[in-house]
Amino acid sequence: MEVLEKAQALQREGRNILYMCVGEPDIPPHPAIEESLVKAIKEGKSSYTHSLGILELREAISQFYYDKYGVSISPEQIVVSSGTSPLMLLLFSLILERGKKFILPNPSYACYPNYIKFLEGKISDFNLKSDKTEYREIKNLIDKDVIGLIINSPSNPTGEVLTSKDLRYLANLPLKIISDEIYHGLTYEGEEETILSYRDDVFVINGFSKAFSMTGFRLGYAIVPKNLIRTVRSLHQNFIICAPSFVQWAGISALKHHKEIIGKAKGIFDDRRKFLLEGLSNLGYEYWGNPRGAFYVLVDMRFLKMKSLDISFMLLNNYGLAVTPGIDFGKNAEGYVRLSYATSKDNISKALEVLKTIKENHQ
Amino acid sequence: MEVLEKAQALQREGRNILYMCVGEPDIPPHPAIEESLVKAIKEGKSSYTHSLGILELREAISQFYYDKYGVSISPEQIVVSSGTSPLMLLLFSLILERGKKFILPNPSYACYPNYIKFLEGKISDFNLKSDKTEYREIKNLIDKDVIGLIINSPSNPTGEVLTSKDLRYLANLPLKIISDEIYHGLTYEGEEETILSYRDDVFVINGFSKAFSMTGFRLGYAIVPKNLIRTVRSLHQNFIICAPSFVQWAGISALKHHKEIIGKAKGIFDDRRKFLLEGLSNLGYEYWGNPRGAFYVLVDMRFLKMKSLDISFMLLNNYGLAVTPGIDFGKNAEGYVRLSYATSKDNISKALEVLKTIKENHQ
Repeated sequence: MEVLEKAQALQREGRNILYMCVGEPDIPPHPAIEESLVKAIKEGKSSYTHSLGILELREAISQFYYDKYGVSISPEQIVVSSGTSPLMLLLFSLILERGKKFILPNPSYACYPNYIKFLEGKISDFNLKSDKTEYREIKNLIDKDVIGLIINSPSNPTGEVLTSKDLRYLANLPLKIISDEIYHGLTYEGEEETILSYRDDVFVINGFSKAFSMTGFRLGYAIVPKNLIRTVRSLHQNFIICAPSFVQWAGISALKHHKEIIGKAKGIFDDRRKFLLEGLSNLGYEYWGNPRGAFYVLVDMRFLKMKSLDISFMLLNNYGLAVTPGIDFGKNAEGYVRLSYATSKDNISKALEVLKTIKENHQ
Repeated sequence: MEVLEKAQALQREGRNILYMCVGEPDIPPHPAIEESLVKAIKEGKSSYTHSLGILELREAISQFYYDKYGVSISPEQIVVSSGTSPLMLLLFSLILERGKKFILPNPSYACYPNYIKFLEGKISDFNLKSDKTEYREIKNLIDKDVIGLIINSPSNPTGEVLTSKDLRYLANLPLKIISDEIYHGLTYEGEEETILSYRDDVFVINGFSKAFSMTGFRLGYAIVPKNLIRTVRSLHQNFIICAPSFVQWAGISALKHHKEIIGKAKGIFDDRRKFLLEGLSNLGYEYWGNPRGAFYVLVDMRFLKMKSLDISFMLLNNYGLAVTPGIDFGKNAEGYVRLSYATSKDNISKALEVLKTIKENHQ
């Protein structure tokens, strides 16, 4: 947040800022999504909805998971909300007891620890490896206080995607699992799988922000075990009530066009990904693992022997390049910075130029 | 929730249900609100916004409070969210410590206790009186564990509005205060006041659902003490991110037309209120206090010597009339049912017919 605020302050002062820090697609939403939103509002669809979300959308989500992954989930297992963030709080609150531990991959999404701390749970870090993570080592972390595990594949910030073998292994661990599938759709090599293919009693988070380019619509959903839906509904009714009605109708339209929308987004992002990875390699940069999903690359800046926060401010102040410091995602990514390629190839070129200068100055 | 679910189930079976239980205006949103929403989406305003909300909306809210109440609040004290519900959770979490107590009016909004219980706080009931509440008695409840007080004027479920004298008294109590002003705009006798006229370091909740008829837009805001806005922003960024961008633009439009919109809503609801109260009196029904705000009346059904939940199911099953049992709002409203007059006079007439039959059968 500090880096972004500083970047925006510099921009207000007239500096040109190259934003490579934003987790937001720059592709406009499909026209059919806007049309559905407008149609819904004109039809007066602006009342409270069922607190789990309108049935038509939950049915469409259920169909989407069936079409895409071949898994059967009931609309009665789905809760639609104003983005995935409030759902994460809800799910963590459902699973976590005070003092109990959740295993978090390190690095992972910066907000996960905040949910856990808010609920007075504890965090057990599972240190990912920048070359190849051995997921079987996770079992060494399991003790009587460990209650759950969060999975995020494709991953923010590494862009890595779990293999079938690893996902199956994790699914079979004797833990409650939250699988954050928000970057699903954006896997560029190999196939992505849902944890639901391996296990029923899990908590899945997904939504429309990333693959559907609908960040500002704030539309997400969770899939929960059947026996918990009434509790989830009650929590959701109390703390959120429901997602906006017309936004839910826009979500139905997005799912109707999912092949076209996701196909297009994948093509655009993969092209940029290859361009960025090749550029980094040509400059002699190393990066974390195999970034084949989401739209992030964790670039290894340890050769600078600086903290990632200092590197980020240096890149911003000296070159107008805004990146996210690795430390935001966990101490294991210290010395790295996260680049988001949810931006034009022209911007990626400019960022590579900055990184070239950094390398040259360092030699 | 049970009564509403049963009502909806009966409706699906083909029964005509008279809904007098819904806290939702039946007035369509002003056309300018829809137009702004459509304009915003067409202009591509569908990205993440500042996590406190777009500055233009926060400025409009600040201006609205100045125009309406003469109080100066900075846009830097305002956080916009997806309705008021997530903000309540956020504010309670900011104020409450585990084991500490919040004073709640009894009866009051059914969700307040759920926030407090979720955060492992305790509730100290302040029993309102159906004739005249002596607010000075609240001081008898204050002990070392009591940390805060919630005020809700106009009140759900009583429809009562605090007098200046009482509001001033409450504002000066040595407690943190959350003032839920969501029904502001809907006061039909006398003037409503914001707690901000009496004290700065308070937490105000308000939004667009009630007076602006924008329930399904899910747009609310909180006004918080300046020194806490950074903490609030961080919590909001983590747990909600932001309200939908285009919905925030619709909110600006609503505030531009606030006099016309609220004036119209007030006229419609006051007309229905008088009609309902007169009808109740003619039938010999008593009701709680002086319902001069919001769109609720708590009707005294204690002569039936039944629990309010049983009364509600009886009214639903035998007469197709859906009301909310008083017990939902606290044990102090047991024996009462809440009628919402956010429905047509024709429906109010039909409800009065049912209540007439109840009285006749009871004699």
